[in-house]
Amino acid sequence: MKFIFEGEEEIGSPSLNAFLKEHKELLKADVILVSDTSMLGADLPSLTTGLRGLAYWEIEVTGPNRDLHSGHFGGAVANPINTLCSMLAQVIDADGRITIPHFYDDVEEVPAAERDMIAHIPFDEKKYMEAIGVKALKGEKGYSTLERNSCRPSFDVCGIWGGYTGEGSKTVLPSKAYAKVSCRLVPHQNHEVISKLFVDYINSIAPEYVQVKVTPMHGGEGYVCPISLPAYQAAEKGFTKAFGKKPLAVRRGGSIPIISDFEQILGIKTVLMGFGLESDAIHSPNENFSLDIFRKGIEAVVEFHKEFSK
Amino acid sequence: MKFIFEGEEEIGSPSLNAFLKEHKELLKADVILVSDTSMLGADLPSLTTGLRGLAYWEIEVTGPNRDLHSGHFGGAVANPINTLCSMLAQVIDADGRITIPHFYDDVEEVPAAERDMIAHIPFDEKKYMEAIGVKALKGEKGYSTLERNSCRPSFDVCGIWGGYTGEGSKTVLPSKAYAKVSCRLVPHQNHEVISKLFVDYINSIAPEYVQVKVTPMHGGEGYVCPISLPAYQAAEKGFTKAFGKKPLAVRRGGSIPIISDFEQILGIKTVLMGFGLESDAIHSPNENFSLDIFRKGIEAVVEFHKEFSK
Repeated sequence: MKFIFEGEEEIGSPSLNAFLKEHKELLKADVILVSDTSMLGADLPSLTTGLRGLAYWEIEVTGPNRDLHSGHFGGAVANPINTLCSMLAQVIDADGRITIPHFYDDVEEVPAAERDMIAHIPFDEKKYMEAIGVKALKGEKGYSTLERNSCRPSFDVCGIWGGYTGEGSKTVLPSKAYAKVSCRLVPHQNHEVISKLFVDYINSIAPEYVQVKVTPMHGGEGYVCPISLPAYQAAEKGFTKAFGKKPLAVRRGGSIPIISDFEQILGIKTVLMGFGLESDAIHSPNENFSLDIFRKGIEAVVEFHKEFSK
Repeated sequence: MKFIFEGEEEIGSPSLNAFLKEHKELLKADVILVSDTSMLGADLPSLTTGLRGLAYWEIEVTGPNRDLHSGHFGGAVANPINTLCSMLAQVIDADGRITIPHFYDDVEEVPAAERDMIAHIPFDEKKYMEAIGVKALKGEKGYSTLERNSCRPSFDVCGIWGGYTGEGSKTVLPSKAYAKVSCRLVPHQNHEVISKLFVDYINSIAPEYVQVKVTPMHGGEGYVCPISLPAYQAAEKGFTKAFGKKPLAVRRGGSIPIISDFEQILGIKTVLMGFGLESDAIHSPNENFSLDIFRKGIEAVVEFHKEFSK
């Protein structure tokens, strides 16, 4: 048994890649077990068979060389925040499709059999909306919610800032506006290719009255774990023992870029035995984890080792 | 001679209005002199004969009830920053016109004679662009730069924020996005009418998958000072004495809401004898004021009093 502890995943694991390349011999293994995934529900155990990839950029838009008085210049000089908003609004069209040219070229279309399987996952859209407090959902036309958040790419503004953001009001035509944006990618989309497509696209729609700088931050490929893999089947038995029912095989929308690094550099497949729940509020205030699931998780992993060692 | 010192102008002078109403007798005067305006240039003295009005709002867009993991929800749940950007992008159309219904209903069209006068103001657009460091200007189709920044209304995002804005990258589908936005208004546009039109408009374009709250912050009317006013003519003489040439009469794009309050509550006209220059960088880092202009300003004001007392 070998353990890797790594604390840089949220910033794109900048050191792990070189470490893997340097220590291929030390890291030799039959399979890798990672628990950084979640299940459909406490009573709906599931194993993750696919992950989305990720590409992340920071955009800086510069208008005038200093903050201007919006009374003296407003209406005559382009405002970089207005401009940034207009550019970001163009990235997704009315059908929820990403408008970056060639973005979908390598997207693996979800096979009919898998769409059928997804359609049979017990999923209460009303409860899903209630849990997150929204009155309606929004996504790519022609796909269900579970397809949209797992098998289809997405574009999100993760952060935006510029101008006066303090209390009360101040009139200003600011010099700069910034956004941090990311795409979730699906299998076959190469994050470096997508990264370049996005940079080119934003530069192509940048109006002449501002300067735009797009900086790629980090990225990673998607991943697929075949259910025919012996280690997957051992994980399935572990889950069955711990949760009392056979887990569903599902793709999830998150990204764990190191999983594809493991495959590409070490040539080792990863089994994703994670026990997270939507109610854990991950990446949010009051993040939590249930002790009951924690204990069942221990049991499932023990059982996995027993089965896999056979 | 009566002096009023007020330190709340940048937050919309919330206390002055009530003070004026309570002290009409104390504040009786023949004319009011305000120096919160600027000139066309150090060698191009000018007196301000018009100001734009202002309306200011804060917009809060709420998507999910908490920050979500953009991998698990991205593509299926609307992102409030993306939504805010789309809404803000809709406020100005491709011709640089504000799309709020009925926004232009009361706008005073610039008279041909005044447009002709504006066209004759010595103005070097290339130098103007160089001074603020932009390669191109942007504004309402059919109007010149000097018209756009003084006689035509404008819409600016003064501040925007939401999601992760720290160093590096963090993926998140945030719960909230905010913007502070303002319109500069022109004579005859009532800021309270415009304020309501904007609130109604933003609510009308708010998609069902987010909750949008628009809070009016403050506002004020535009102002016109006729050049036939004896006090204006005294000011003109003061400028001529101090700067060695007759000042041009120009409208400026800034807003001083108290000027229209003075007129409406006290029934007193204001003469705007300001000495600011574009290079003063007002509302910006390194704000400054030239000592030479300061001394000429003193001379112009002394001369104004001499002339007006006649």
